Amino acid sequence: MVQPVAVTDPEDPRIEPYRAVRERDLVGREHRFVAEGEVVLRVLLRQERFAVESLLLAENRLEGLSDCLAALPSHVPVYTAGRAVMDAIVGFPIHRGILAIARREPLPSPDDLLSGLPEDALVLGLIGLANHDNVGGIFRNAAAFGADAVLLDDATCDPLYRKAIRVSVGGALLVPFTRAGTGQALVEALRRAGFEILALSPSGREPLGQVRRRGRTALLLGAEGPGLPASVLAETRTVTIPMSGGFDSLNVATTSGIALYELTRRESADSC
Amino acid sequence: MVQPVAVTDPEDPRIEPYRAVRERDLVGREHRFVAEGEVVLRVLLRQERFAVESLLLAENRLEGLSDCLAALPSHVPVYTAGRAVMDAIVGFPIHRGILAIARREPLPSPDDLLSGLPEDALVLGLIGLANHDNVGGIFRNAAAFGADAVLLDDATCDPLYRKAIRVSVGGALLVPFTRAGTGQALVEALRRAGFEILALSPSGREPLGQVRRRGRTALLLGAEGPGLPASVLAETRTVTIPMSGGFDSLNVATTSGIALYELTRRESADSC
Repeated sequence: MVQPVAVTDPEDPRIEPYRAVRERDLVGREHRFVAEGEVVLRVLLRQERFAVESLLLAENRLEGLSDCLAALPSHVPVYTAGRAVMDAIVGFPIHRGILAIARREPLPSPDDLLSGLPEDALVLGLIGLANHDNVGGIFRNAAAFGADAVLLDDATCDPLYRKAIRVSVGGALLVPFTRAGTGQALVEALRRAGFEILALSPSGREPLGQVRRRGRTALLLGAEGPGLPASVLAETRTVTIPMSGGFDSLNVATTSGIALYELTRRESADSC
Repeated sequence: MVQPVAVTDPEDPRIEPYRAVRERDLVGREHRFVAEGEVVLRVLLRQERFAVESLLLAENRLEGLSDCLAALPSHVPVYTAGRAVMDAIVGFPIHRGILAIARREPLPSPDDLLSGLPEDALVLGLIGLANHDNVGGIFRNAAAFGADAVLLDDATCDPLYRKAIRVSVGGALLVPFTRAGTGQALVEALRRAGFEILALSPSGREPLGQVRRRGRTALLLGAEGPGLPASVLAETRTVTIPMSGGFDSLNVATTSGIALYELTRRESADSC
């Protein structure tokens, strides 16, 4: 069982990666990311893709996490601090009192990621999604409905940003993802790997409920407002979610949930 | 066309309702609410339930809203201020530069609200939802899929809180709602009005996709984590959203979107 190391000096060099968390997360970290809160920590500890480097826990959270600490590899240091020291280290009040630093892995090429997927794989493609809440929400839904992978264009924000992981309740640590360049490059990578590509759009031609999955299927989502680029819509099957309210389009994370529900529901119904 | 009144003193008594917006919203206002941002303002101005009392606009937003101002009743004052004065009035940086004060209406009794609904009405019942993002997201979905009304138990937060309205992109101003007391009282009001009551729960007995709507239907949603009270689940048809990922349950706003999609989709399919 790992013995927690008490930290009393916010300048202690051992907890350097936890300093000024918010600012450093916003500029992006090369090789690490920060996980926050108990739910996310438990997902982090039970997955194998990302190695945990250390934990920083408020003293009053130790007891509730004793099972996690017991299972932790002995080389992973666990730091603990009083609430005031922890807030001073991090740079803002860290209400959850639970932080972890983990190591990013190099992202595979889209071709490598896609070629390893099953013949009935369901993949999401995110184009221009710059909002961490939405990206986190989409990863949560992707994990819930068992999507096989997520491709991100260059303009889509980092799923391993602290807030995105938190909103995903850890889904961002579970669903494989990679960068695929421009939206156009993302579409081409899917096509090379034999995916049928569905583009969700308020102006889509087919209602979602009439779509049948045949083999590998990808679902493209664009930002609220601008939506998917016209060039992408022009060369894909466009799909829409029928709405009776005559009101604004849906939030993109909710849209992903509805589409994943429909496409995985239909699959189970067909196999009856 | 209403002539904007320039405000240069943050202490100007005419803009009193805009002072310390955040703090006063959190304690709750008796007779008014605050709407924020262009999208919400446009919804506010085209609905008739809530009367607009005044607008406060940053000078640089006037031009883009000239069509709104042209359509505004002449008794509604429009105040305008430079960004610094506006921030000083409101108490924090108000990036959108657009605020409105509107009047709340007395809430009808649940019986009055429900009795006026059509024979195929679809109503949401929210029990214990204390998160403004979730309540806002649910109202957005309710508006998108044309739900007829929303009932709230005492523990569910205010849909007319500024942030909830914003997340709802104005849906909270469009879908009729009222308070119904405890969760139990909410269920009883639905029953008196002849509603079939579906309770969404990860442990629900029927998969959502197999539910057929017959007449008036209500969909109950509880908070993530605790879920709906056991007493409510014991006396209603419990429904679940099948998920293949073996992962955490869905966000409750996403859940509402999926359920509304399924229940309104099926209705249109049946009527073919």
